[in-house]
Amino acid sequence: FITKLDLELAAIEKGGYEHFMLKEIHEQPDTIFDCLRGRLLPQSGQIIMSGVDNHIDALKNAQRIIIVACGTSWHAGLVAEYQIEELCRIPVEVEYASEFRYRNPVINEGDVIIAISQSGETADTLVALESAKEKGAFIFGVVNAVGSSIARLSNAGAYTHAGPEIGVASTKAFTGQLAVLTMMALKIGYAKGTISEARYMQLMHELQAVPEKVKEILADTSVIQNIAAKYKDAHDFLFLGRGYNFPVALEGALKLKEISYIHAEGYPAAEMKHGPIALVDDQLPVVFVATKDSYYEKIVSNVQEIKARKGKVIAVATAADDVIPGMADDVMFVPDADEVIAPLLSTIPLQLLSYYVGLAKGLDVDKPRNLAKSVTVE
Amino acid sequence: FITKLDLELAAIEKGGYEHFMLKEIHEQPDTIFDCLRGRLLPQSGQIIMSGVDNHIDALKNAQRIIIVACGTSWHAGLVAEYQIEELCRIPVEVEYASEFRYRNPVINEGDVIIAISQSGETADTLVALESAKEKGAFIFGVVNAVGSSIARLSNAGAYTHAGPEIGVASTKAFTGQLAVLTMMALKIGYAKGTISEARYMQLMHELQAVPEKVKEILADTSVIQNIAAKYKDAHDFLFLGRGYNFPVALEGALKLKEISYIHAEGYPAAEMKHGPIALVDDQLPVVFVATKDSYYEKIVSNVQEIKARKGKVIAVATAADDVIPGMADDVMFVPDADEVIAPLLSTIPLQLLSYYVGLAKGLDVDKPRNLAKSVTVE
Repeated sequence: FITKLDLELAAIEKGGYEHFMLKEIHEQPDTIFDCLRGRLLPQSGQIIMSGVDNHIDALKNAQRIIIVACGTSWHAGLVAEYQIEELCRIPVEVEYASEFRYRNPVINEGDVIIAISQSGETADTLVALESAKEKGAFIFGVVNAVGSSIARLSNAGAYTHAGPEIGVASTKAFTGQLAVLTMMALKIGYAKGTISEARYMQLMHELQAVPEKVKEILADTSVIQNIAAKYKDAHDFLFLGRGYNFPVALEGALKLKEISYIHAEGYPAAEMKHGPIALVDDQLPVVFVATKDSYYEKIVSNVQEIKARKGKVIAVATAADDVIPGMADDVMFVPDADEVIAPLLSTIPLQLLSYYVGLAKGLDVDKPRNLAKSVTVE
Repeated sequence: FITKLDLELAAIEKGGYEHFMLKEIHEQPDTIFDCLRGRLLPQSGQIIMSGVDNHIDALKNAQRIIIVACGTSWHAGLVAEYQIEELCRIPVEVEYASEFRYRNPVINEGDVIIAISQSGETADTLVALESAKEKGAFIFGVVNAVGSSIARLSNAGAYTHAGPEIGVASTKAFTGQLAVLTMMALKIGYAKGTISEARYMQLMHELQAVPEKVKEILADTSVIQNIAAKYKDAHDFLFLGRGYNFPVALEGALKLKEISYIHAEGYPAAEMKHGPIALVDDQLPVVFVATKDSYYEKIVSNVQEIKARKGKVIAVATAADDVIPGMADDVMFVPDADEVIAPLLSTIPLQLLSYYVGLAKGLDVDKPRNLAKSVTVE
């Protein structure tokens, strides 16, 4: 009886979706909206985040920012690296928590550590922070679970407000992290004077438009379902991107690994010619995250390189792009956005692709083998 | 006739080896020795590198060192990151040249850029350096080809003296880079006072012993040949390491990709539980670079995690280790060495593994498909 009741409860909690993962993917317009609500105020030109406001000097004067995270959160950290370096002109280093802890890292006065964790209980990250705190580092936590260990250990922080995430593979927590980190970069850059008023206002408006744009992507997933059906039996995938889309490629590959057990690997697109392109033949699907940004011309050449070796190209492209669709075998479109904001959109089709490939393979997408939701062991 | 003569010349140049790659792997005791000769003088406690000596203040006072490279050279840069942070206490960031160039990186006065390139003509690296030089950065080149473009563009540098490398997949140039970067880290750390005299002397002696230890590894490759024969038909490989051996794992995976077209991926071992472990089943060979170092106990647990999921474990282990061999399916031993030096040894069995897998698959190991020796296009 108890088992039966649990199952019924689980079905109710899924809110009509077949799996928590699909539900959580579709919740993203709401979770991102919740994350921005009361914080992002483009009308008044303000971003209100008390954790940042209370420590704005420490943050804007940081000589270096070290981001410590694992897994999907580490990919959010890579996006933040690009954002913070560009908007705040502060050097950023993104570290695997497990590596950071053991290698006696250089931490100087004035350095800021940003810890990113959905659960706030990630053991590797927690232990890394404890030793950094002993050395006097200022720790800013970007955490989803309120009151968790990392939240309590941090000197300041900002919650991602994505709500409980049940699917083992992170989706809405990731976009929540991106939303928080983007607001932080904007806020620090504006306080520091490293971005103009006009750019600050433009990016605030762009960020505010994200929930609606995510809704557009989610409105019709049939193309993505067809692509998933077409490639579900592939042995391997490559995911490529440049700039802001490079971490999105890494995250897309990780998601597919987790959900479908297909060996998917992410790479910066330009590194292909330094070795990995040897893998490319007519059996290999290559996913390009190729939205319109300052790297666009370069990524078009990278697509050509793969097509010249007969690879199958699946592209995430900007709506109304008329070049990439002419070259790619399959295309998933996302609405146009500034490149600083783009990862919040370009990651969505890749979440769906993983979900539908896993589903087509008949796998337990909410509880992939070998994985735990929050990794509380080192 | 002309073709015939060319072939004969090539055969002569291979010096009795079946391929340039195998010849170049076996040359490493000599090329590393040549790289150290006249520079590393443990008897007098000196390391003589005029490029470092002439700019020792710029180097030891660097607020940050940015290493810019592509492919295999990028992996050498990751090893150097660990060495320089530990021995010199200078924060190091390792950048993909292609990404670094386009993202308007933060370069402050006092920052030092180390560029690593075998050919010295790598277009991505070259262009990245040109823009950094315009911003006033001090550029130190670690290059193999004498008089090459990167060597000429650098403010100072050190050649790796590995001799011409013909095999497309880099082997002896990589260990030459490691030897040069290790000497640099020792020299800067000693000048800065961040390592003790005793540690400096110990590591100099350890480094001097490397050519002989490499010779030991190369003396009998039959175990590695057997492992290659056993796993040559695997669809995928994972390569895992922690700390100094993490970049070695990445390089081992890249080498196997290049030479065998098997999809091999490198990862920091502790990241497995944050996603990639979903891939592990009884079909997946997992190569652990698991020599005895300060991460050893942790990597033993990581091996256990893989064995618990029935993965096949191939380990690179330290001679006389009696724990790892009891857990792994196959073991390749290397002589004991300090962890700072270990990558120079642990990379050798992985070069041989790739070579013999490629050979067993009947592939053109000297000229893998789709690849060029030096990538002179962006």
